[in-house]
This record gives sequence, C-alpha cells and structure tokens, in this order.
Amino acid sequence: MATQQMRSPTPKGVADAASKIAQLLPKTPLIERAVNGVPVWFKAESLQPVGAFKIRGAWHRLTDLSEAERARGVVGVSSGNHAQGVAWAARRLGIAATIVMPVDAPRTKIEATRGYGANVVLYDRPGGENRDAVAQGLIDQSGATLVHAYGDPWVIEGQGTAGIEIAAQLAERGLDGPTRIVCPCGGGGLTAGLALACPDAEIVPVEPEGWDDVRLSLEKGEIVGVPDMTFPTQCDALQTPATWPINFAVLKARVARGYAVTAAEVRAAQRWAFAELHLVVEPGGAAALAAVLAGKVPVDGRTAVILSGGNTDAGDFAKVLSE
Amino acid sequence: MATQQMRSPTPKGVADAASKIAQLLPKTPLIERAVNGVPVWFKAESLQPVGAFKIRGAWHRLTDLSEAERARGVVGVSSGNHAQGVAWAARRLGIAATIVMPVDAPRTKIEATRGYGANVVLYDRPGGENRDAVAQGLIDQSGATLVHAYGDPWVIEGQGTAGIEIAAQLAERGLDGPTRIVCPCGGGGLTAGLALACPDAEIVPVEPEGWDDVRLSLEKGEIVGVPDMTFPTQCDALQTPATWPINFAVLKARVARGYAVTAAEVRAAQRWAFAELHLVVEPGGAAALAAVLAGKVPVDGRTAVILSGGNTDAGDFAKVLSE
Repeated sequence: MATQQMRSPTPKGVADAASKIAQLLPKTPLIERAVNGVPVWFKAESLQPVGAFKIRGAWHRLTDLSEAERARGVVGVSSGNHAQGVAWAARRLGIAATIVMPVDAPRTKIEATRGYGANVVLYDRPGGENRDAVAQGLIDQSGATLVHAYGDPWVIEGQGTAGIEIAAQLAERGLDGPTRIVCPCGGGGLTAGLALACPDAEIVPVEPEGWDDVRLSLEKGEIVGVPDMTFPTQCDALQTPATWPINFAVLKARVARGYAVTAAEVRAAQRWAFAELHLVVEPGGAAALAAVLAGKVPVDGRTAVILSGGNTDAGDFAKVLSE
Repeated sequence: MATQQMRSPTPKGVADAASKIAQLLPKTPLIERAVNGVPVWFKAESLQPVGAFKIRGAWHRLTDLSEAERARGVVGVSSGNHAQGVAWAARRLGIAATIVMPVDAPRTKIEATRGYGANVVLYDRPGGENRDAVAQGLIDQSGATLVHAYGDPWVIEGQGTAGIEIAAQLAERGLDGPTRIVCPCGGGGLTAGLALACPDAEIVPVEPEGWDDVRLSLEKGEIVGVPDMTFPTQCDALQTPATWPINFAVLKARVARGYAVTAAEVRAAQRWAFAELHLVVEPGGAAALAAVLAGKVPVDGRTAVILSGGNTDAGDFAKVLSE
C-alpha cells in the first residue's frame, strides 16, 4: 500500500467535496427529536441512495481521478457500506470497480454491491486472511487505484460533508452550528472528516465494545489495534482492525476521547430509532445513538447524532424488534 | 355534526396552509428510487414529528381557530395518526384536545396521543359504537370545535401541502412537477388536498381491499359506504366507513379512478420500503407503494408516491419482515 498517495485531508478539501455532493444528492434529513426533554438533531445518512454516508467519500475520491486512472479502474476494501458507495459512484462514472469483501459480510450488502455492477472478491475474514494483501494483489495485476474505506484523504474529506450539511440545515432553521457531533466510528474516516468540517464542534466517536481501538488509541496517544479480532459484534460496519496514521493525525489534534457501547445498548438504540424516528438503522449505524440513549455522551448544547447506515438483513432486524 | 362549518376547500387555502407549514416544519424528504428501472419519487411523510402527514391538516385547522374557539378546546376522531396530529398541534398552541379513538387502535398510537398531552376517550369500534355520536356528546358538553379527520376544509387544505412540497422539491432538482401522485386513501382528505394542490397531476388514491369505498364511489359517481365494516384489514389508518360530500366534490371533479390492494401486497410493500429505503412504513402508509409494486398503477411520467405514515407496533413489523 506504500504507493498510495498520502497528502493530508484539509478543510478546503471538505468544502470542495461538499460542493460536488450538493450537486449530486439532496441533503439527507436532519430530524429533531427530544432525548430526555432536550432537542437533539439526527442526521439520517441511512437514507442515502446506498443506505449509508459512504457514498460521500467514494464520490469525492472517484471524481478526482484522472482519465488514465479512471480507465484502470478502482479497488475497494469494505464489509459492505463503503463497497456500495464505491460501486454506486463507479457505475455512475463508468469506472470498473472491484470490491474485496469479507465472506461473512451481511448478504444484503454483498448482493447490493453486486447489484451496482461491481466485481466482488470475497476474502476469509473469520479465517484471518489479510484483506489488504488481497486488494494489493488485484492492484498489482490491473494498476487500479485503491479506494481505502477510511485511510484516504479524499474519503475523509468526503465523509466530512455530512457535517457541512448539518451546519447548513441548522442555519436554515435560524440556529447556530452544532456544538457536539456524536458519530459511529470504525476506522475513523467519518470522525476525521467531521473534525475538519466543523472546527468549532466537539467530535465524539463511538465504537462497539471490543472494537474500540480508536477510543484506546486516543487514550494512549498512539495507534492501538483491536486487541481481540474474534470478539463478537453485530456492528459489522465498524469492524476495523485499527485506524490509520492519516486519520489519527486529525483525531489526536481534535478529539478528546471516544466511547464504547455494548451490544444491548446498540439493539435498544435500533428499537428507539424504529419507534421514535421510523427509521431502519443498522447496528453500526446506531452506535452513536446508543451512547446518547445510554447516557454515556451528554446532549446539552446543540448535539447532532449521525445515524450512519441502514443496511441490515430483515431477519436480523426482526429479531432486534422482537426482543 | 350539522353545526360544522362547511366552506369548500380551495387551492388558495392550500397555499396559505403551505406557508404556515413551511415555517413550522422542514420538508419531509423526497427520495428517488427506481421501480422496474423507472425513477419514482417517494414522499416520506412517515418522518413527520408525529410519524404521519396528519400534522399538516391539524396545524392549518388549529391555527385558524379564533381565540374564543381555542379556549373551548378541540375534539378529534381518529384511529391514531390524525389523533397524534391534533394532539401535537394542540399542545404546541396551548389548546385542550380530546381525541375519540377506537379501543382496538394500535397501542403505540393510543400511547403516543396521550404522550402529546391529549385526553383520549375510547369507543367500542368492534362493537359498532358510533364514533361521531361519542364526539358530538363531548362537543355538546364543552362547546369544543370538532376537527374531523378528513371531512373538514382546513384539514383537506393542510394535507394538500404535501403536494406543494413535492413540486418544490422536484423544482429544486431542475424537474417539472409530478405528472402523477399515488396516495393512500382513507376518507379522502389527503387525496382531495393533493388534487387541489397539484391541478396538473393525475391523483391516484389507493385503498385496502374491502375498504375501497372511495374507489366504488368514484365508479358509481356517488358516495358509497364500505359494504362490510367487519372485513379484516391491517391498514387501520385507512379504515373509514365512507368519504364525506366535501371530499367527494373534489374527488369527483379531479380523480378518474381508485385502486385497491390486498393484505399481501401491502406487506410486500412494507418489506420493499425496509430493504430499499430503510424506512419503517405502517400498513396503511404503504398502500400506494403496494399498488405501484404490484403493477396496478403505472410509474411512467414523473410519478410521486406518498408514504403516509410509519406508526406501527414493533411486533407487527417484525412479523411482516419475518414472512
């Protein structure tokens, strides 16, 4: 992966990405609901065309490729939402896309990625196969550009556009920008993007228990990986082994601390989103909401909560509702 | 009910209502998705604060009451969504609200209505008790104003504001207004409102099988009631015995025909909305989508489909997903 361009993501890059996204997609709704009597703003990224915010970074990345790069195609590595984002953007731009996905990813995500016309290559996540090595093998063959799920400046900048929209939507209602943004965190692409997009807001990343490597890394002041990669979690979208230096540089400068939520807290958040917002939110997409509802993260000031995705299997969601 | 004011609803009234709603609530999202390869626009009224479009008509009605009328309170009759709309608007305006609801309404709707601070009076729908008589008794006591769920000019005008928003949202994307709007239909408040709001669009009401009295009325050219009030349906929001003259006058002039959908078609539509839109749509709210997915209503031209509500019990929704 050493050949990957590694410029730093910038606020200017977020602004450029926001202009491009504004021309492509309507803003996702910013829905106000009270939590313990306090108004909170929920950003429904689950309503994006691919069911997750990942479309933002993928679009910014792919539209900045040169003609020669476009002709050689792109390779993505993803458990599902980034996969769909890259596949969606690639089809729209006429770029060939190959996505490396874990064999145990939700079926609905694998099928959707194929549905957008991408070539899906499965790797053995449970067996410990190295996905980056699989991707590198494909890149060595084709000369394709890697579109990393979070360790990429364009991807970080693109994800940050959600924060630009939140500020604009609050302004439309005569309100100042967010003072706090709580977001689900996997590798830290969204978290870093929001930090660049909203310099005046406290950015609060939330990870699933056992996969809270960003929380640990912030605590320690250096990148720490997930201690036990076999720790079970239903938050497939947030199962990242470790954040990357390009992300951590932003996080370390801007984010005070992270939080972890339990599986039960995530399920309770999914049920709350069902009942109060009538939204289908996938487990990983509900992590930030879970931290808020569990009282781990305060909602004073003007708190925005990112509901980052809605791609979950019907059977799994039915089980959560029936609990 | 003879004392109820019965001016006709007008396009001017819809425009007035739209100005009021625009100041109160952000537009609900208009989400584009392909159906059989054709782009269709879905209006997610399920994302309103009360989980249904009913907040529109209730707000228009209550804000036009005089000070003296406000002081005497309002009485609503509703299986649940109109109840919540009236209760929400009444609380916001400091007006006392009593809602007459069927004892077999979804528990979630009764609880939500009480949660907005309304006094709920239950009537025996399964036993055939006349809800209008119950409401009239309450009005005789208090001098309160009846806010009928559909047979009211303000309510009709208010519901029509959804059509104004659809046209505005298409215009924001550089597109002409809708050529067809497919909408769930109970008593015909929304249908009549949309007909006034969008004079150039074909308005297509969809009812559940057995409760398709508007379809029958349009066919016959006069108001026909539901033939069998015991016919089972999961679409509680659309269980209205008959449309009212004030609605039918608009429908007869503007609507060519209605359609009916089966219970299985409604459940399939709920599952499609879950998988493709990540939205929770209640059975009645999915009726129009059901007619589109079943191929009963075409989607050529620029078709908008109203997803009118999302208030459904978790257990019921889990059953639909597990099917």
